[in-house]
Amino acid sequence: MMSWHWLIEWQTPYEFHGHEIKKVLAEEKSEYQSVMLVEFTRFGKGLVIDGKVQSTIYDEYIYHESLVHPIGISLDPSPKTALILGGGEGATLREVLKYNSIERAVMVDLDGKVIEFAKRELKEWHRDSFEDKRTELIIGDGLDYVKNTKDKFDLIVLDLTDPLKGSTSYKLYTKEFYLSLKNILNKRGGIVTQATSPSFSAEVYSTIYTTLKQVFNKVSASYTYIASFDGLWGFVYASDDADPSSMSKAEVENRIKSRIKGELRWYDVDTHTALFSLPKNIRKCIENNTRISTEENPIYVPA
Amino acid sequence: MMSWHWLIEWQTPYEFHGHEIKKVLAEEKSEYQSVMLVEFTRFGKGLVIDGKVQSTIYDEYIYHESLVHPIGISLDPSPKTALILGGGEGATLREVLKYNSIERAVMVDLDGKVIEFAKRELKEWHRDSFEDKRTELIIGDGLDYVKNTKDKFDLIVLDLTDPLKGSTSYKLYTKEFYLSLKNILNKRGGIVTQATSPSFSAEVYSTIYTTLKQVFNKVSASYTYIASFDGLWGFVYASDDADPSSMSKAEVENRIKSRIKGELRWYDVDTHTALFSLPKNIRKCIENNTRISTEENPIYVPA
Amino acid sequence: MMSWHWLIEWQTPYEFHGHEIKKVLAEEKSEYQSVMLVEFTRFGKGLVIDGKVQSTIYDEYIYHESLVHPIGISLDPSPKTALILGGGEGATLREVLKYNSIERAVMVDLDGKVIEFAKRELKEWHRDSFEDKRTELIIGDGLDYVKNTKDKFDLIVLDLTDPLKGSTSYKLYTKEFYLSLKNILNKRGGIVTQATSPSFSAEVYSTIYTTLKQVFNKVSASYTYIASFDGLWGFVYASDDADPSSMSKAEVENRIKSRIKGELRWYDVDTHTALFSLPKNIRKCIENNTRISTEENPIYVPA
Amino acid sequence: MMSWHWLIEWQTPYEFHGHEIKKVLAEEKSEYQSVMLVEFTRFGKGLVIDGKVQSTIYDEYIYHESLVHPIGISLDPSPKTALILGGGEGATLREVLKYNSIERAVMVDLDGKVIEFAKRELKEWHRDSFEDKRTELIIGDGLDYVKNTKDKFDLIVLDLTDPLKGSTSYKLYTKEFYLSLKNILNKRGGIVTQATSPSFSAEVYSTIYTTLKQVFNKVSASYTYIASFDGLWGFVYASDDADPSSMSKAEVENRIKSRIKGELRWYDVDTHTALFSLPKNIRKCIENNTRISTEENPIYVPA
Repeated sequence: MMSWHWLIEWQTPYEFHGHEIKKVLAEEKSEYQSVMLVEFTRFGKGLVIDGKVQSTIYDEYIYHESLVHPIGISLDPSPKTALILGGGEGATLREVLKYNSIERAVMVDLDGKVIEFAKRELKEWHRDSFEDKRTELIIGDGLDYVKNTKDKFDLIVLDLTDPLKGSTSYKLYTKEFYLSLKNILNKRGGIVTQATSPSFSAEVYSTIYTTLKQVFNKVSASYTYIASFDGLWGFVYASDDADPSSMSKAEVENRIKSRIKGELRWYDVDTHTALFSLPKNIRKCIENNTRISTEENPIYVPA
Repeated sequence: MMSWHWLIEWQTPYEFHGHEIKKVLAEEKSEYQSVMLVEFTRFGKGLVIDGKVQSTIYDEYIYHESLVHPIGISLDPSPKTALILGGGEGATLREVLKYNSIERAVMVDLDGKVIEFAKRELKEWHRDSFEDKRTELIIGDGLDYVKNTKDKFDLIVLDLTDPLKGSTSYKLYTKEFYLSLKNILNKRGGIVTQATSPSFSAEVYSTIYTTLKQVFNKVSASYTYIASFDGLWGFVYASDDADPSSMSKAEVENRIKSRIKGELRWYDVDTHTALFSLPKNIRKCIENNTRISTEENPIYVPA
Repeated sequence: MMSWHWLIEWQTPYEFHGHEIKKVLAEEKSEYQSVMLVEFTRFGKGLVIDGKVQSTIYDEYIYHESLVHPIGISLDPSPKTALILGGGEGATLREVLKYNSIERAVMVDLDGKVIEFAKRELKEWHRDSFEDKRTELIIGDGLDYVKNTKDKFDLIVLDLTDPLKGSTSYKLYTKEFYLSLKNILNKRGGIVTQATSPSFSAEVYSTIYTTLKQVFNKVSASYTYIASFDGLWGFVYASDDADPSSMSKAEVENRIKSRIKGELRWYDVDTHTALFSLPKNIRKCIENNTRISTEENPIYVPA
Repeated sequence: MMSWHWLIEWQTPYEFHGHEIKKVLAEEKSEYQSVMLVEFTRFGKGLVIDGKVQSTIYDEYIYHESLVHPIGISLDPSPKTALILGGGEGATLREVLKYNSIERAVMVDLDGKVIEFAKRELKEWHRDSFEDKRTELIIGDGLDYVKNTKDKFDLIVLDLTDPLKGSTSYKLYTKEFYLSLKNILNKRGGIVTQATSPSFSAEVYSTIYTTLKQVFNKVSASYTYIASFDGLWGFVYASDDADPSSMSKAEVENRIKSRIKGELRWYDVDTHTALFSLPKNIRKCIENNTRISTEENPIYVPA
């Protein structure tokens, strides 16, 4: 009996990947997006938004630890205040709260329905993060928040949907936005953004790097393979002060030990090295890129 | 107009990846397999055997350079004689012949029709390798060749199809076979085998490592992402003398320069580091594996 | 944004049809099968069992009216007692109960869980049929029921799953079974069976005809196109007395009017003609068939 | 080993059908379209244009005989001159030439490359039709031909691609075009057009009927199931004099015998009846339609 119930994810119009669905666990349409929690045969529980796998039990920790910890341990001193834009599952929040030093973590997400969905259905992702006393959850537009807040932060994590044409998020990948982030970042603070896929949208990955380079002194790019995304995924870290890619192994080891409370499932010294060991094709792709994303001429992932 | 002409590659019965075919360039059925050369929209020219993408212009060099060079530069002295089992496209041969020191390269492939097909259709893969004076091409069974040859080699490269149940190649991943290889390997020589996918068949990847560990003193595993294989791909290197994973950056750089003639498109010092920087999940997978592949109890990739 | 949530129904290993799923409404696994109620973009609500579309709001009435009414109106006198084997949705029951003359309708279905599912989720199918005073619902094996009952019936409707190898139903398409049906059929009564697809399993369709011909004097075959089944569907009617295929238009019209209460959405005089107007390929297929399905040598639909 | 080489035909953006390709036999891109001759596992040789199955050895005769013969036998006297627009495979021409009475058959097709392709690759379709002395082949625009010719015809057959937005053919389904056809049709002559699918584009099928009704006195619609089109296919016949749908069985039988030379594989008296026996849903669809296709407001099949 051949498999019949499928998620077909289109990476491009000439490329699709099919994952068998064992069961649809929950489904909802919000004002902004269609949200579905499914049981995949290969990945177990997985969150699907608008037909794209957002994260699965199978490897969400690879994504979320790679996003948060390289920048988290690189900052000096260890971050006390963090701002997360996006990150509806609550797993980015979970990683941020692992820092002993964190006293306040503000999370701003546009889609209240997705947050409600996550609170109810994604316990394995967020654990008790939404109930943590240090957490402040704001349903609203990240762009507005950044423009209007009077607060400053040590760590800013951009866990946003890809810059799709017509999306709510594409402006959050532009030079103008990064400049406005700088206004609310403490001097020795750092930011990180998910940076789309070096496999499927290498130009976007590189442009995020190049654009951040226009605004911050120290910018570094990492990547790893995420099975449930069917390819490589990228992250870009930026700061005027810290540079995760140039830390010594000893330093990485030390800071992981002294700063992070609770289990890390994926991130350790050797994983840190792997994250920043870019093979030649990815290096060339970044080096050769000259494009900068601006409000006037923003970059988009292929539809 | 939506795309209509597809290769659907099944990684498992619950996982498929679709690649749009622009044109079928050549097609042939041999005694052993069905061979097709297509133009993919994403990857350009690609060789497909029994429905599996074997290699594409887009990234074949990533695969073939990762296979040959880490072991090639690690041997001391630089290899004079090489044996290649499989490798029908001629690209592994192409990489082996880049070594100044190579005086003789024997390639043994089972399927004469595929070789004829490759000679005729895959010029971009093999270049002039089949015509090189150092090349000896033998159409025949690798297992038999290894048992019967009187020759010894410095470098042995196993560029075989995956150990599928009922395949012609599954015995070439067993302890018994590795022992017979040792008989024809010079004392300071080394071998490498493609090791299937850490993404789709992690147990096979690990078992190849563990099995080689039973036979050789120094065994190391590498991996990289191959877009046209839809995931990570692995390689295992083994020797009683050399260990590519523990070379210093300076050594790697030096040996690449002094030994290899002609352009490398992917392999360099930083790529070498990337190849051997295993993230935690892959390390754990290898460390926890205890299985050994033997003739009596061989390991197979999932059908 | 391309469609991502799909039911892929395999008609054969070299033929599949994909229908977009808008939403999964309910899902359950019983001892015998996996049952799913979905909202299809094209068909609206649809029942899917083991990956096969069973019936949809869009065209279930075409299937159920074609199954019941040609034999129902052909019997003389109009049927008072009916036995339905299978028919979990309750829609065959619904059609049977439309006959003024029906005093008792026994429905025997193997899968209690599917019946519970139908009662709860498929109101549009069964309407109030399960609550009708004339209905007797038995959860149990049809084969056993037929062997053990002391009752006789005017009309027997076989609304069974296809005779798949290893299924619970393949014996219910054999000569032996048809002989045992004859024992519980009144002299002037008639039976009908769904007869699989003349498009995808023409040999099974024809063999059901030929097999019934061994047991009954008057056998006729009809067919129609069912969009949600992706092809033609067949029905075979058998009796020693009545022959729906040879009725005059006037007779058909008369009997529909005098016997059937409530709306018919599809079945009328011209539809009756269409059902029995077999084009040449289907006629030839039936005429040329010599195979008979027996317990020893049963026929199966292709897996 | 699961099937990997597929044609995926999209009937709508939420509906696709996959047919396994055994081998691509020939492939060509013309100025207008992409043409591919493949060996399907289910259908054998098949012609695919722009990703749509045009016709296959398996059932092309069902399509071509249903197109030509109902109108061909209905005309009185039997047609001497015929005009075919489209019909690149040459099979419509083949059927037209079967009439004893035919003295001249003009075929006008836009795409010379497709005709060359057909002549070379599709011998089983056209047989010797292109070489028949009665045949006149014109490479050119059908619309222009109809406007400019001084000739008149007894039979006009429109074997065109579907009226897709932006296609070369959509104007050939409008009232204006049908009016211009009337100018070149002899008084007692008749026309037929393929009328797309009652399953996938019922509104187009009905609108072709309604539009022809504006121009001709006698219009009738037929349909049949074409497996390689994955559904029903429709035809509409129009004349001021003849009506194939109202012929008696005897008349149909007689005229087939007296007029048509050579084997008919599908069309006979009972098939004629089947073609015009519309079930209720198709009848209602035609009856309820009020739309007319005009140059200003043409009808299109869903993209």
